[in-house]
Amino acid sequence: MGNFPGHALPGSFFIIFGLWWTIHMFNRFYLAKARNSKFRSSAIFNCPFLCGRLKEWPLEAYFKLICVSVGFYFEIKTGFSSDWRFVNTGNGQHATMFFFFGVNAVIDILVYFKWPLPPNMEYVSGVLALLCEYLLFKFHLHGRTDLDVLLHTLLLHAIVACMVALALELKYRDNILCALSRAYFMLLQGTWLWQIGWILYPPFESSFRWDKDDHEQMMIATMIFTWHAMVVLLTMLAIGGVLAFIHRKMNLYRKEDTFKFKPLIKPTSNGDSVLQLHDESESDQDIEQTTALT
Amino acid sequence: MGNFPGHALPGSFFIIFGLWWTIHMFNRFYLAKARNSKFRSSAIFNCPFLCGRLKEWPLEAYFKLICVSVGFYFEIKTGFSSDWRFVNTGNGQHATMFFFFGVNAVIDILVYFKWPLPPNMEYVSGVLALLCEYLLFKFHLHGRTDLDVLLHTLLLHAIVACMVALALELKYRDNILCALSRAYFMLLQGTWLWQIGWILYPPFESSFRWDKDDHEQMMIATMIFTWHAMVVLLTMLAIGGVLAFIHRKMNLYRKEDTFKFKPLIKPTSNGDSVLQLHDESESDQDIEQTTALT
Amino acid sequence: MGNFPGHALPGSFFIIFGLWWTIHMFNRFYLAKARNSKFRSSAIFNCPFLCGRLKEWPLEAYFKLICVSVGFYFEIKTGFSSDWRFVNTGNGQHATMFFFFGVNAVIDILVYFKWPLPPNMEYVSGVLALLCEYLLFKFHLHGRTDLDVLLHTLLLHAIVACMVALALELKYRDNILCALSRAYFMLLQGTWLWQIGWILYPPFESSFRWDKDDHEQMMIATMIFTWHAMVVLLTMLAIGGVLAFIHRKMNLYRKEDTFKFKPLIKPTSNGDSVLQLHDESESDQDIEQTTALT
Amino acid sequence: MGNFPGHALPGSFFIIFGLWWTIHMFNRFYLAKARNSKFRSSAIFNCPFLCGRLKEWPLEAYFKLICVSVGFYFEIKTGFSSDWRFVNTGNGQHATMFFFFGVNAVIDILVYFKWPLPPNMEYVSGVLALLCEYLLFKFHLHGRTDLDVLLHTLLLHAIVACMVALALELKYRDNILCALSRAYFMLLQGTWLWQIGWILYPPFESSFRWDKDDHEQMMIATMIFTWHAMVVLLTMLAIGGVLAFIHRKMNLYRKEDTFKFKPLIKPTSNGDSVLQLHDESESDQDIEQTTALT
Repeated sequence: MGNFPGHALPGSFFIIFGLWWTIHMFNRFYLAKARNSKFRSSAIFNCPFLCGRLKEWPLEAYFKLICVSVGFYFEIKTGFSSDWRFVNTGNGQHATMFFFFGVNAVIDILVYFKWPLPPNMEYVSGVLALLCEYLLFKFHLHGRTDLDVLLHTLLLHAIVACMVALALELKYRDNILCALSRAYFMLLQGTWLWQIGWILYPPFESSFRWDKDDHEQMMIATMIFTWHAMVVLLTMLAIGGVLAFIHRKMNLYRKEDTFKFKPLIKPTSNGDSVLQLHDESESDQDIEQTTALT
Repeated sequence: MGNFPGHALPGSFFIIFGLWWTIHMFNRFYLAKARNSKFRSSAIFNCPFLCGRLKEWPLEAYFKLICVSVGFYFEIKTGFSSDWRFVNTGNGQHATMFFFFGVNAVIDILVYFKWPLPPNMEYVSGVLALLCEYLLFKFHLHGRTDLDVLLHTLLLHAIVACMVALALELKYRDNILCALSRAYFMLLQGTWLWQIGWILYPPFESSFRWDKDDHEQMMIATMIFTWHAMVVLLTMLAIGGVLAFIHRKMNLYRKEDTFKFKPLIKPTSNGDSVLQLHDESESDQDIEQTTALT
Repeated sequence: MGNFPGHALPGSFFIIFGLWWTIHMFNRFYLAKARNSKFRSSAIFNCPFLCGRLKEWPLEAYFKLICVSVGFYFEIKTGFSSDWRFVNTGNGQHATMFFFFGVNAVIDILVYFKWPLPPNMEYVSGVLALLCEYLLFKFHLHGRTDLDVLLHTLLLHAIVACMVALALELKYRDNILCALSRAYFMLLQGTWLWQIGWILYPPFESSFRWDKDDHEQMMIATMIFTWHAMVVLLTMLAIGGVLAFIHRKMNLYRKEDTFKFKPLIKPTSNGDSVLQLHDESESDQDIEQTTALT
Repeated sequence: MGNFPGHALPGSFFIIFGLWWTIHMFNRFYLAKARNSKFRSSAIFNCPFLCGRLKEWPLEAYFKLICVSVGFYFEIKTGFSSDWRFVNTGNGQHATMFFFFGVNAVIDILVYFKWPLPPNMEYVSGVLALLCEYLLFKFHLHGRTDLDVLLHTLLLHAIVACMVALALELKYRDNILCALSRAYFMLLQGTWLWQIGWILYPPFESSFRWDKDDHEQMMIATMIFTWHAMVVLLTMLAIGGVLAFIHRKMNLYRKEDTFKFKPLIKPTSNGDSVLQLHDESESDQDIEQTTALT
């Protein structure tokens, strides 16, 4: 919708999910490090701090579904009141986007309940949702002002990067960087949507006015985009640092408690892992041979 | 050809092949799962429900060749009647596309008869056919209306995605997602060709008329494209669901019948497979040692 | 140079190298198949039909150096006669391209003489030469006619594809498809350069004249490009077929002669190769154990 | 800043870092070859010719931080003196770039002090810094002359290539070519920034004047860019050659001295490495069996 809340609402959703992912990814990463096991990403994250069955439930997917439904309802209601076709095409486009993310959420839930879907469908549907978002934004800019086009073009960069990060995460599930990239570009999308709303539909009266055809101001807009990129990077690193600190404290406590923890999977590369297995098999063999010979 | 059947005919071909592939890919996938073997894609699929030698024959390639010949003949006939060079260049372009897919079909057949071609030529010729389609569509839009250009640009997106999916499938033959992506984008091309025909050359009188320079309507066109993407996704998932259901029924029946089925290839990743082999070699060794020592 | 020989000369060079590579790649591929060894590509190919030390010499690199020197001399001579800076920039650009390919040839020779270069420099310099060709052609089209721009844009596609194929071959040296792609796009560049010369600077008087702004004719030009792509594909497959036929004949003859040929490298994938090695180690072990126990 | 030193200063930084990397990469490569170990790249390089603790210190990162601070201070000072917002946006953009590289340097230092960052953050922050540079340069060209746009577009090519090389190096740390590509495109950026300054803001009076809209001259500019690419290539190969010569001399000397050097890591591919390990395990086993049986 061409107003401030229409940009701030999806932007907030993106920020919430980006932060949620960042926290859980770092959490899982440091947990895997402490347990000497391997980090493995997933499309959605559970809430380990809840009790009982809720711990296992795909609450993230349900929450996504609710967010998306709210957005969808809002877009349809404001869009279809009068003769919708020619007046509020933008609303139809936004509703389409929400619908795609809704399908993504439904597939997340189906994957949780082990429906016989092809593997990684939760990632594929996410990529498709972003692809749809990309197409709609790309061919949505006819006849706008230069500044508007620039702001949305920068958004397109973030969307494409998010899509690429998600596709890479599908392929390299063990790589923390791919996972964090997804969260990073999702956050960037969110904060930038807020910024777009702020620039194009300023919610407060302000002394500074954006002149929509001034080339100087377009350079400033690009610069602000890079500042967003920087702030999001530093925020994510700060979250990672705090979580690393907490995990270190907890590990010290845990170590005093028990010593019996044994790693099941060694965090080694392929070649090293083979070596590892040989060592074990040799020692096993020795024992067997000893027992066989005596 | 600049008319409705000229878009609907190739569109129908694409839809038929897309559906055919979807069914066979899912079928093979669930079969591999039931047999605990590995899914492996192929460029063309046989008809296992036919009897005798027909079961093995590359009927898909023959059918492709026939479709393509029909299209080629049709294009040449309507194009070359009068002084063809300046009036019906479009027909020449379409005939060229059909010819490329024809070469693809011939190579499929040669591969079946084990001609000494380089490996994966059936995929390479498919990629080349799509590349040719892409080039012809891309440089085919000079001086058209904005709406026409937009509709074909969206088609180009589907063609490129199909090409990428085919190239990835060439490389990752065991990956069901690459194979399904090929079918997905082929179906999307097909349904979108129908839609293009419907918009530019409406076959029926209708109250709604597309205004070829209205920017609002161009947004609607993009939105319809994403709806196609959604419908094709849901259709494919539905086909997959139905096939999964059928396979589950059949597996229950089969399990009652025989228990002696033994997996030959374990569906494991590289590292696990090495582990697997070691386990076996160790146990084999034990037996050997036991026999040697007793 | 803006005339027919200026396009036909480099075009001929590209065609000669493309054909040379095609023949040698297919030859090596079928030889590897017959010997049950692995195909491995190289940047340049020797002349196995020559006698003595010439068999080992990098004659291809020397020939490349000579071709390039001829071209370079030709461009400089025709370009620098008068006040070169403003009249014959095109010549300077062409001379630059020749110089890059010359450096490529020199590096081929240095690699042959085992100079301490980083690995794969013969490929890297080839990619750089094509990159330079790409840049020069891309920013060389200001203020030309639409037809001229189109013809060179199509050429750019072939150059980029050739560059990508070369980079992939660097990474996947054992893959015949990457190697053949390089030859394919090199041939396509060559034939298309001839075609560009033929269209823009027709060497013979002809009744058909290219109108440089007619959109119909631009479609025809694109169509002719795809025909080139088709003809080059069929030519390469024909060469491959003839070589396959010759190798089959020779193999029959060879088999009657000797039976003692033993494969050194098994053409297996990684996983299978590990299995292979295990089989051997096990059998070796058995023998050792038997000898140790008796 | 729109003057000669504003281009020459960052250009010099890029050239210094490019040369530094080239020397260290080649040095490490030939050292690894002499020791029969594996080359492994790193984001920053130490100064092995310094004594004591300085040998281990990340002096490169500190130097980068100092360079960047100088540049940042310079930009801010000249930019913010008067009403900065509308007059010196360029300065703000340049300061942003310096800030990103500064964050990169800080992360290099944090990685050295083993802060709990995600792995490879030193590379990721470098890619982000280049990405930011790319975005700022890309949307910075509104309303400039054709020549200015061309010069910066060529720079963008170098930046993108540098980014790709850095990302590839992140993934393939053992590959000398990825590492050298990073140094190559960094050097190219540096020399090209000097050239841009020289063309747009000539520091000396010269008889030759660049006409900012002449298409002939734009071709010359592209040609000069390829000459830079050539000169940088030859310079790097020359540095590599000199270092190879020095290492050969040193190795001869070293060999006379000691013979006891033993390789720890064999420079083999995965399959070969497995074979290697088997050989060892087998021989170990023989000894064990012998001892067990006697």
